[in-house]
Amino acid sequence: MADTPATPDAAASTEPKGPSKNELKKAAKKAEKAAAKDAKKASQAAAAPVAEPDYAEGSYGPLPLNMSQERTKRERISIAALTPNDVGKTVLFRARINTSRAQGSKMLFLNLRQKTASIQGLMIIDGTKVSKQMLKWSSSLLAESIVLVEGVVEKTAEEIKSASVKDLEIKISKFNLIAGLDGLLPFSLEDANRAEADYAQEGADFNRVNIDTRLSGRVLDLRTQTNQAIFKLQAVVTDFFRDYLHKNGFTEIHSPKLQGAATESGASVFKVQYFKGDAFLAQSPQLAKQMCIAADFERVYEIGPVFRAENANTHRHLTEFIGLDLEMAIEEHYHEVMELLDGLFLYIFRNLREQYKNEIEIVRKQFPAEEFIWREGPEGTLKLTFAEAVDLLVADGVDRSVLDDINTENEKRLGRLVREKYQTDYFIIDKFPMELRPFYTMADPNNPGLSNSYDFFMRGEEILSGAQRIHEPQLLMQEMRKKGIDPESMKAYVDAFRMGCPPHGGGGIGLERVLMLFLKLNNIRRASLFPRDPKRLEP
Amino acid sequence: MADTPATPDAAASTEPKGPSKNELKKAAKKAEKAAAKDAKKASQAAAAPVAEPDYAEGSYGPLPLNMSQERTKRERISIAALTPNDVGKTVLFRARINTSRAQGSKMLFLNLRQKTASIQGLMIIDGTKVSKQMLKWSSSLLAESIVLVEGVVEKTAEEIKSASVKDLEIKISKFNLIAGLDGLLPFSLEDANRAEADYAQEGADFNRVNIDTRLSGRVLDLRTQTNQAIFKLQAVVTDFFRDYLHKNGFTEIHSPKLQGAATESGASVFKVQYFKGDAFLAQSPQLAKQMCIAADFERVYEIGPVFRAENANTHRHLTEFIGLDLEMAIEEHYHEVMELLDGLFLYIFRNLREQYKNEIEIVRKQFPAEEFIWREGPEGTLKLTFAEAVDLLVADGVDRSVLDDINTENEKRLGRLVREKYQTDYFIIDKFPMELRPFYTMADPNNPGLSNSYDFFMRGEEILSGAQRIHEPQLLMQEMRKKGIDPESMKAYVDAFRMGCPPHGGGGIGLERVLMLFLKLNNIRRASLFPRDPKRLEP
Repeated sequence: MADTPATPDAAASTEPKGPSKNELKKAAKKAEKAAAKDAKKASQAAAAPVAEPDYAEGSYGPLPLNMSQERTKRERISIAALTPNDVGKTVLFRARINTSRAQGSKMLFLNLRQKTASIQGLMIIDGTKVSKQMLKWSSSLLAESIVLVEGVVEKTAEEIKSASVKDLEIKISKFNLIAGLDGLLPFSLEDANRAEADYAQEGADFNRVNIDTRLSGRVLDLRTQTNQAIFKLQAVVTDFFRDYLHKNGFTEIHSPKLQGAATESGASVFKVQYFKGDAFLAQSPQLAKQMCIAADFERVYEIGPVFRAENANTHRHLTEFIGLDLEMAIEEHYHEVMELLDGLFLYIFRNLREQYKNEIEIVRKQFPAEEFIWREGPEGTLKLTFAEAVDLLVADGVDRSVLDDINTENEKRLGRLVREKYQTDYFIIDKFPMELRPFYTMADPNNPGLSNSYDFFMRGEEILSGAQRIHEPQLLMQEMRKKGIDPESMKAYVDAFRMGCPPHGGGGIGLERVLMLFLKLNNIRRASLFPRDPKRLEP
Repeated sequence: MADTPATPDAAASTEPKGPSKNELKKAAKKAEKAAAKDAKKASQAAAAPVAEPDYAEGSYGPLPLNMSQERTKRERISIAALTPNDVGKTVLFRARINTSRAQGSKMLFLNLRQKTASIQGLMIIDGTKVSKQMLKWSSSLLAESIVLVEGVVEKTAEEIKSASVKDLEIKISKFNLIAGLDGLLPFSLEDANRAEADYAQEGADFNRVNIDTRLSGRVLDLRTQTNQAIFKLQAVVTDFFRDYLHKNGFTEIHSPKLQGAATESGASVFKVQYFKGDAFLAQSPQLAKQMCIAADFERVYEIGPVFRAENANTHRHLTEFIGLDLEMAIEEHYHEVMELLDGLFLYIFRNLREQYKNEIEIVRKQFPAEEFIWREGPEGTLKLTFAEAVDLLVADGVDRSVLDDINTENEKRLGRLVREKYQTDYFIIDKFPMELRPFYTMADPNNPGLSNSYDFFMRGEEILSGAQRIHEPQLLMQEMRKKGIDPESMKAYVDAFRMGCPPHGGGGIGLERVLMLFLKLNNIRRASLFPRDPKRLEP
């Protein structure tokens, strides 16, 4: 690679037209020159005192800007895949410089990183392959630079604590820059990566990178071990969600986010300029997934963005988050749905604990937390009615008169009470008062004022809301009018039930909340790749 | 179930508050009464001439509105799962009345449907279980009503052509209405379901349901065999997409659709009122997925909605569609991405053909099409350069002077030429002129004016667009300015590359286009659950 000519070969071009050919070539050259400048400087600086010839020339320096100039198909290895069997092999790989530390004037220790894997790289002036100039230039490269490394895999004398590969290192013979930095980093990755325990050490005086700084420099922040683990876990939660639902006969759907009317609750919906009219962003796939039940899909789920125009600046609200939604026809009773949802959560929790111990532990280092616990076995998940939950709080000293609804503070209190009494961080509250639920909720047939609806909780915070829905159009319209909604404004939705719809129910899960609460990240923004709140639309 | 008391038991209620308890009960009763009215009418009408006692009373009629009154947990079977081993068994199941036909005054033939499965139901007045009144009421139920059916599985004397289960039928002993219709259907499902071949029959005089009528009554339209198959296939395409990418080390991401700036190309972006300011809907996850590469995710994909504010009313444009996007770091050459994408499509095509023959044939009945063909084996997928594609068109008589770009008409022509010459409906065009591509596209190092970019085609229509991207911030800013974009307006994006980003490339696929073209549905709206175009925001 290092020997590839840097200059595009103009003579070889057979393309007659193209308005920007010269500019493009210039730009490419300029970029290469900029990248090469540091190398020359380093080389000159190193060469100045003695002017000795550089026997390592060609084994280091910046590579030309990659424009796919050539393709050797030479194998490049993954650090995580290295084993003691590779000792003695010459390997080639791309990595970030995680840290770099010169020892004396003849040795350079590098920590080279690929995602969460890392290995020690060692460069020693040896009179044949690594020159003084090469070492000098290499040690001038900043942390987070991307390099192409060639070297021999060797066994280490002692365990390398700072690398994920502890028993091997790379004796470097070629070292080239693929992509450098342009300006200063907003914070150091070392600071961003620091475990909570480090701050507690005696004499510790580290920079704490606050969440706003992290989010503004999110691209850098996402490179931390913690974030690599968090977003690995985010992806596997959706995998487990899909797995379980596929096994249970669900079909994935994609419903439109652009809506003709401000549905569900007009107050918290974003308005979109839609050609010469208006559209609105869906607050959930509620209407669409119910229409799919009326359309005989029987069991559907959707993973997609939902939008909430609530000006809520809290640790648990986003204006855009990922909804894991499902809806299913029921045969007899809405507990069929509630139990399926319970099975779904247990499936996710068990698989996370069994298969992703490593990732959970990585996150735990930065965010210490009590282990997330739940009930298994014949007793199963704790299910309280709303009335029982209220009684628990009253018994703990909360005034019953404020418990028409359970506010956020009392939810957390309830979570603590439940953990103490039932040894679980996960439970269900069933039978919410009708007045607390949306218009499409089915009433309890035996307890007027109550509804066939439930919320699921993790560590005292709601992560799922669901219910049996009204499938009968006349009753639905009556309930709409009661909540001040004109059925004509949601005609297509009401019409779906006029065409015959089976009894059904479902629920909606907030992906970021599940992740935040399982890992106890304390702020939902940490569970969102590029979070959106009333004050943040970037990056 | 049929014996469940219809009236919620008020005396059993222990709930003191709840503002709407009486109204709710009334509504539930009203709904039940409405449903019961027809039954009474039928019963009276039947009873009028002879006034004979009804020995089948309690074996038919409308069920009370399902409010989860009780839970027997009695098994309900799936029609598709029935086998000759079930002959003689009494079974219970929920189904739609697909068709209903009385024969003489003693027999009723029903076609009972669950999704795409159906079975014949037979009701015969027998002096013990099925009465005259029961038969009369049952035959009064409209097609698309949802019923609960109990009966004995029997072997049929001859093959039932109109049902998916051809050798079995249900001798009905109980027949109850779960959910009826409220008003007339906008069209009959029989008309909506009709195969193209039926119209060609001699003397055929069927109603053709046009696409606009279908889309306005989409809930009904989605119940057709064709649509059940189409949306099954839509779901499996995304499954295959994920499978393949998981096997190749990709991580799923979810990027925000709300953007702080009108990015990529300002002209076709929807504006959102965001609290006191503005936001914009993402036209693709382009920026986010590239930022994930800069954040060391190495290989990412996203399945999510993308929004295009183009006032294009064509067969292949939607204002909202599902993007299958991916991005990956490259080691040497952008053909690494192109080849991975090619492998992805072959994986999807092969698996569809092998595992979903049935669904494809169902769709084919309504939308006859030449089999979708592609090249396999050592020769592999056809890859043309843009210049070679132009030459093919010129050789076919197209004027070279209009081929700076290849328009939709010439794309289709090219598709036909390629099919004739190379026997494939799937091919790749590489090396597009730089001026046709977005600012973030990497130029070809050897052919000024050309770029490291490609489009993928199915049946002469573009389904994927992709390229190597610029990973060097100075070159990126230069290209932005050239296209009239102020780099400051996309600061977070540019900053991502300042922090060091590996060479990378990717592509974006339109899910609905792939489905439309594989199945030759001729209109993209047929591949979208609830399509959105400049004139349609409902249902």
